[in-house]
Amino acid sequence: MSEIKLVVIGGGSSYSPELVDGIIKRYTSLPVKELILVDIERGREKTEINCALSKRMFEKAGINVDVKVSLDRRAALAGADFIITQLRIGGLEAREKDEMIPLKYDLIGQETTGPGGFANALRTIPVMLEICRDIEELCPEAWLINFTNPSGIVTEAVLGHSKVKCIGLCNIALNTEQMLQKYLKVDKSRLRCVFVGLNHLSIVKNVYLDGKDILPELLTQNVGGNSLASNIPDIDFPEDFLSMLGYVPSSYLRYFYFEEQMLREEKARIEKGIGSRAAEVMNIEKKLFAIYRDQEVKIKPAELSKRGGALYSEAAISVIDSLHNNKPELHVVNTLNRGAISDLPADCVVETNCLVNREGAIPLVSGALPENFRGLAQQVNAYEQLTIKAAVTGDRGKALMALINNPLTHDAAVTRELLDELIEAHGRYLSYLGKGGKK
Amino acid sequence: MSEIKLVVIGGGSSYSPELVDGIIKRYTSLPVKELILVDIERGREKTEINCALSKRMFEKAGINVDVKVSLDRRAALAGADFIITQLRIGGLEAREKDEMIPLKYDLIGQETTGPGGFANALRTIPVMLEICRDIEELCPEAWLINFTNPSGIVTEAVLGHSKVKCIGLCNIALNTEQMLQKYLKVDKSRLRCVFVGLNHLSIVKNVYLDGKDILPELLTQNVGGNSLASNIPDIDFPEDFLSMLGYVPSSYLRYFYFEEQMLREEKARIEKGIGSRAAEVMNIEKKLFAIYRDQEVKIKPAELSKRGGALYSEAAISVIDSLHNNKPELHVVNTLNRGAISDLPADCVVETNCLVNREGAIPLVSGALPENFRGLAQQVNAYEQLTIKAAVTGDRGKALMALINNPLTHDAAVTRELLDELIEAHGRYLSYLGKGGKK
Amino acid sequence: MSEIKLVVIGGGSSYSPELVDGIIKRYTSLPVKELILVDIERGREKTEINCALSKRMFEKAGINVDVKVSLDRRAALAGADFIITQLRIGGLEAREKDEMIPLKYDLIGQETTGPGGFANALRTIPVMLEICRDIEELCPEAWLINFTNPSGIVTEAVLGHSKVKCIGLCNIALNTEQMLQKYLKVDKSRLRCVFVGLNHLSIVKNVYLDGKDILPELLTQNVGGNSLASNIPDIDFPEDFLSMLGYVPSSYLRYFYFEEQMLREEKARIEKGIGSRAAEVMNIEKKLFAIYRDQEVKIKPAELSKRGGALYSEAAISVIDSLHNNKPELHVVNTLNRGAISDLPADCVVETNCLVNREGAIPLVSGALPENFRGLAQQVNAYEQLTIKAAVTGDRGKALMALINNPLTHDAAVTRELLDELIEAHGRYLSYLGKGGKK
Amino acid sequence: MSEIKLVVIGGGSSYSPELVDGIIKRYTSLPVKELILVDIERGREKTEINCALSKRMFEKAGINVDVKVSLDRRAALAGADFIITQLRIGGLEAREKDEMIPLKYDLIGQETTGPGGFANALRTIPVMLEICRDIEELCPEAWLINFTNPSGIVTEAVLGHSKVKCIGLCNIALNTEQMLQKYLKVDKSRLRCVFVGLNHLSIVKNVYLDGKDILPELLTQNVGGNSLASNIPDIDFPEDFLSMLGYVPSSYLRYFYFEEQMLREEKARIEKGIGSRAAEVMNIEKKLFAIYRDQEVKIKPAELSKRGGALYSEAAISVIDSLHNNKPELHVVNTLNRGAISDLPADCVVETNCLVNREGAIPLVSGALPENFRGLAQQVNAYEQLTIKAAVTGDRGKALMALINNPLTHDAAVTRELLDELIEAHGRYLSYLGKGGKK
Repeated sequence: MSEIKLVVIGGGSSYSPELVDGIIKRYTSLPVKELILVDIERGREKTEINCALSKRMFEKAGINVDVKVSLDRRAALAGADFIITQLRIGGLEAREKDEMIPLKYDLIGQETTGPGGFANALRTIPVMLEICRDIEELCPEAWLINFTNPSGIVTEAVLGHSKVKCIGLCNIALNTEQMLQKYLKVDKSRLRCVFVGLNHLSIVKNVYLDGKDILPELLTQNVGGNSLASNIPDIDFPEDFLSMLGYVPSSYLRYFYFEEQMLREEKARIEKGIGSRAAEVMNIEKKLFAIYRDQEVKIKPAELSKRGGALYSEAAISVIDSLHNNKPELHVVNTLNRGAISDLPADCVVETNCLVNREGAIPLVSGALPENFRGLAQQVNAYEQLTIKAAVTGDRGKALMALINNPLTHDAAVTRELLDELIEAHGRYLSYLGKGGKK
Repeated sequence: MSEIKLVVIGGGSSYSPELVDGIIKRYTSLPVKELILVDIERGREKTEINCALSKRMFEKAGINVDVKVSLDRRAALAGADFIITQLRIGGLEAREKDEMIPLKYDLIGQETTGPGGFANALRTIPVMLEICRDIEELCPEAWLINFTNPSGIVTEAVLGHSKVKCIGLCNIALNTEQMLQKYLKVDKSRLRCVFVGLNHLSIVKNVYLDGKDILPELLTQNVGGNSLASNIPDIDFPEDFLSMLGYVPSSYLRYFYFEEQMLREEKARIEKGIGSRAAEVMNIEKKLFAIYRDQEVKIKPAELSKRGGALYSEAAISVIDSLHNNKPELHVVNTLNRGAISDLPADCVVETNCLVNREGAIPLVSGALPENFRGLAQQVNAYEQLTIKAAVTGDRGKALMALINNPLTHDAAVTRELLDELIEAHGRYLSYLGKGGKK
Repeated sequence: MSEIKLVVIGGGSSYSPELVDGIIKRYTSLPVKELILVDIERGREKTEINCALSKRMFEKAGINVDVKVSLDRRAALAGADFIITQLRIGGLEAREKDEMIPLKYDLIGQETTGPGGFANALRTIPVMLEICRDIEELCPEAWLINFTNPSGIVTEAVLGHSKVKCIGLCNIALNTEQMLQKYLKVDKSRLRCVFVGLNHLSIVKNVYLDGKDILPELLTQNVGGNSLASNIPDIDFPEDFLSMLGYVPSSYLRYFYFEEQMLREEKARIEKGIGSRAAEVMNIEKKLFAIYRDQEVKIKPAELSKRGGALYSEAAISVIDSLHNNKPELHVVNTLNRGAISDLPADCVVETNCLVNREGAIPLVSGALPENFRGLAQQVNAYEQLTIKAAVTGDRGKALMALINNPLTHDAAVTRELLDELIEAHGRYLSYLGKGGKK
Repeated sequence: MSEIKLVVIGGGSSYSPELVDGIIKRYTSLPVKELILVDIERGREKTEINCALSKRMFEKAGINVDVKVSLDRRAALAGADFIITQLRIGGLEAREKDEMIPLKYDLIGQETTGPGGFANALRTIPVMLEICRDIEELCPEAWLINFTNPSGIVTEAVLGHSKVKCIGLCNIALNTEQMLQKYLKVDKSRLRCVFVGLNHLSIVKNVYLDGKDILPELLTQNVGGNSLASNIPDIDFPEDFLSMLGYVPSSYLRYFYFEEQMLREEKARIEKGIGSRAAEVMNIEKKLFAIYRDQEVKIKPAELSKRGGALYSEAAISVIDSLHNNKPELHVVNTLNRGAISDLPADCVVETNCLVNREGAIPLVSGALPENFRGLAQQVNAYEQLTIKAAVTGDRGKALMALINNPLTHDAAVTRELLDELIEAHGRYLSYLGKGGKK
């Protein structure tokens, strides 16, 4: 079994210890020899803290991994086997803008969906494609495991505009499966959930327990009615709602199905002085890094679980295990549709059940989407494809067209103002989008 | 040339003189021998007024047409060659509810689109399918020309749930073409507009003048920026908006693209005491029927043009001419897609350019929709198909699913309240929808 | 783990001991409690011999399985968990006609492909659908594992015209994989072959060794150039032929790619007095049953391997294991396409890589067929769908249309004569097809 | 109305007077000012004869057209409005090889279909694409009207590998329509035939008389059973054959449906000393040019009708009239499918009913092909697309793959020999195809 060089871009993320923990747990099947935490100057301090903690964690586990910090992405990438991207362009400050600015327009502010997620995508895609240029040159056989949000759009941009082998990940599917295992008190081997849709816009359309679809019963018990994402406020679904839907919606779907309530939640939060989720995360991170710095801390701190990335490392490490060891397993990942979901374009990126082995991710066929979900998925898919076009062309008119197509905006005139404000607020990250409708 | 028996269901409509005028103008190619104005008891008076006026009009034109009123639909249908349906279930009173009730929920109130159009569809489809049962039995070879709104949904219900030969019509395409002819000062033979989409959700994606697509230039001149429908308030499009879109949107698309402004317009109207458009139409109708009653009136009254149905008779009569006389001509009608628009299901009803002759309407291929229009069309198509399912099954849960899929609603909890209020308000017309999510 | 009732229809087949051997090998995971060998009166003797041998085999293996013969299919089916169909309508005598009659017309005579396979399908489909009616009534939850040839057509008929849960099997994929494992001297876990196409018309379009597609190299080494089916004569492929194809063709494809040579082979066989393959199999069977009858024989006789069904039991038992034990594994089976192969209809049955667990078989997406294989697969698919229509309607005109669409016929006039002779020769099995083009 | 510059490439064709006759008849709507007959040195004499005859014809008609011979294609193309290509690479000598060589292998020899048509396509595509390079440069707005056979493949190569605006033509549809008009004794305005398929592989799937499909009755009367192409021998269809088909097959389909009989016809012809059709045409042409040379001949000679191109000029001139005068009319032409026929790729060229105006040809939607025609059309479509690939890449292996996919070959080994002989026989025209399977 060959040894692995793993490069983490965005190594200063507070999630990094989670990842190190995952490596330790799977070390027998995934012998990581070199782990390079890459970041930019601005993230240097956090990255160095992560690096030091990682060393202590590996040492305590009795594992010999060469962990390094690098601010030189190209040097780090040379010869990499796997690259994990978990970057956030503009940091939590930018996320805060994504969450707060839309609220001024009475629109949902969220880092991965709606206008906020849109601004995030526009900041991120150009940087990700630069990284891909480097990968194509320096480690063309490496696998890129993308966690950078919005994960589906970013993965589609990578697969559509580079030759990089890429799988996009999200922890929602794993969390949903784990919730169901607990609820049903069954082992995971007895359960198979069919996920279809787009990243942060997926649904569970079947839950097979011992091969029998028990979803209809689960829905009458309101299973799936609670938010599984710590950054998404919970609301009560109207009675019967899940049964009428006929599927379990991703937690993010409550922004689409219950926009008014979610908007009220977001505003209430501000009014109560809680501040944005970004601000909250900044606080959590401050505390986390204080803990990470502690020389006595040698395992993943329990506090990390509040951060919202539960099972994040499980998702990453298990997929890398399948890829590296040619171990055919089912994972829910973001990859090219290729006809698996018949209502979405063959060349778009979907989030669905795939067989993953060293060849990559091969979707299982799932046919047509539920008819009451199809329209929304197609509308959001159109928004995503337009967003990628806007990012790749740098055309502000296309950016407006993309954002108008997002179901969480409702008026082109308002959207235009909002777009202008977002571009202005994000400064150099979005200045590549020209003025007016012209490039 | 065989003589024609024409049955108008909804004969009491104030549009009827427009239709009679159309018959007179095309009489040489369309020898209508018998014209039966069918209505229900409630519309008897108006129908009789229309009948008397029609007789005077035919007489003045020197044309011998046997015009009759009938409250017995089945008797009227026997042996019909063409049937025009222009009914409104529940009359203008119901329309007023469709326009007013959604406003309480800060949602667009409109008779053919949004929640109002939805309620209209649910009232109408069951009645239309009853009419189709009669046609299948009594005049199976007759053509049904449907004007009943929402025209696309109703036509799709007819084609999907009966064997009746049906073409759905709308006057928007003709008005758009005429506007462009006037703007360009060219004869209609030199101009071909490519319409694609759904009824009241269509766009002009090309304008060929002498075979060359001049749409890009027209858009820079803001052509297409004004509402062509007298019942749709006008608003100013942001500069460049049309050029960024790349197509001329149907006037109804301003409800989707400028929902906030349109909602403000609707509310302002109420605040100013203008009342609903339905109320306005009631007034117009009162005046119109006073004129129709005047024994001296023997031609189509000029006042009718205020009613909003410009070119309505032109649309109907020219299509009937193509059908009856096997005269191959291009018309923009509602018919089965069959692959003409590749982004929409083959079995849905689209509004697009068709060759019409005695065989019926055969769509011209137009390929993919513009990418910035595709998502909305697919979302609305899903809403329409769900609405038909709800109407046909009488399942209130499906009705909620349909309305949630309408882009002019934004919150499932609010939508559920609104749905309950609409069902309650429309009494016996919607009582076939059960309680809760059950049938 | 629940115990299994397994019903084998066509229990008198000489393959039965192979199956019993498979059950013994997997007994720990597949606890078969009851094995019923069903046949018709005509097969009674062979079935009883098989039953007695099975008992000795189970006894020797120390396994307690209740083996029985039944001529009462309905009684046997009641409560079945799995049903294996391996019947041959008309027996080897009918097969001999399928092989010999086409030769008179200078056309390929083969039991599963060409006009012979067509006659076989027409004899078999009506009987299989009768069996399905029984299953629907008596054991609706049972899985039908179909080996009856032509396996793809029969499976498509079952899935299209009954509610029975059915997977169609063939041993070709397993044999190909095993050949490659031996050639490459690698363990099966390191190899994944991508099979696409139809039963007896499939290709291997990728051979992944440790995740890397090595097929191009294999083709230059002429791997895949030998027949893997003992009933298919071998011929030499022209140099470079496999590399030009770009895939490994199923052994059956040599009837399509080298029709003239294969026809010469078949004729030479007759001229040399070898007789038909059916006659040869009759001889083999005679010898086999003489051995089976021997009370001292208590294990699967080595001679069975000449019969041509290598790995037949492996294919059946491993799929049953996945189904029964909800054990997700990849198998190459015949199931509904559902978009896995984008060039073939969603509702046809394809032979391709599937994940099989208790839910059934879920195809992995494979996208478009190689462009030089697509046309043939589409033509044969059309032939198959027409054949099923002919069998279901009993319309001889449709039967002629089906056979004309088979690429191994070349002239409608000749085909018509041949069809008439086949129908005549098969007597009561095909008398349900009327005269002329009428039913 | 602007004046027209028309360039005919292959101006030495004996069809040219037919074209001139067509121009004269439509001169009021198609004011051709300049007619340039382009040919290569080898065709100079014939072209000059055609030119002189054309001048006499125009003069007699009292029309002032500037007719010229040019051996300088590029000079001729500059400023052209329409280009008609009617060239034959290698002349009738090459056609004779296409007809004779396959016969040695017991395969159909035909200039547009089977191996002969294949060789023709391979000779022609490279030259056509050179012409397209010139058009792109010298007259990019001009319309290319292609008659060069095989017309569908050539048109697909042009549309797929150049930016030239091109419509492919064939006279079969017009001849079929005219035959039906005569048979039914009705005016063409009352009849609409629905043609679907590929060039020389089309069918009539509906015949609407006054809007009613009378095809089923026509088929019982054996209408469509006779060859409409003077170069295709007639054979008797088996009784009921047309009714079983359910459509009228193109005359060329008898090569596919009755290959054995057609092959016997072709061989009998040779045995009787009639020689190839090419040889026959050489004789006809010799006689024709003798007539053309006659200074007294000033109208289209009646003898031309024997040549086999009936209605050729009608097809060309009527389409040019629609294009030039933006006159929307229905024509059956070869153009991009774009979804009109749902069983064939969107980007292939089909032969079907189109609306033609100055925009070009827009197909009418026709949906799915008859199920008993679909497979053959898909197989031949695959052959065509592979042929274009072979011509564009010059890869002999791809050429073999293409020819194997042609339903009129039956054995890859034989096909390979045949291919080698064709390439050898056609010398410099096919020498661009390399050796073996390599380029």
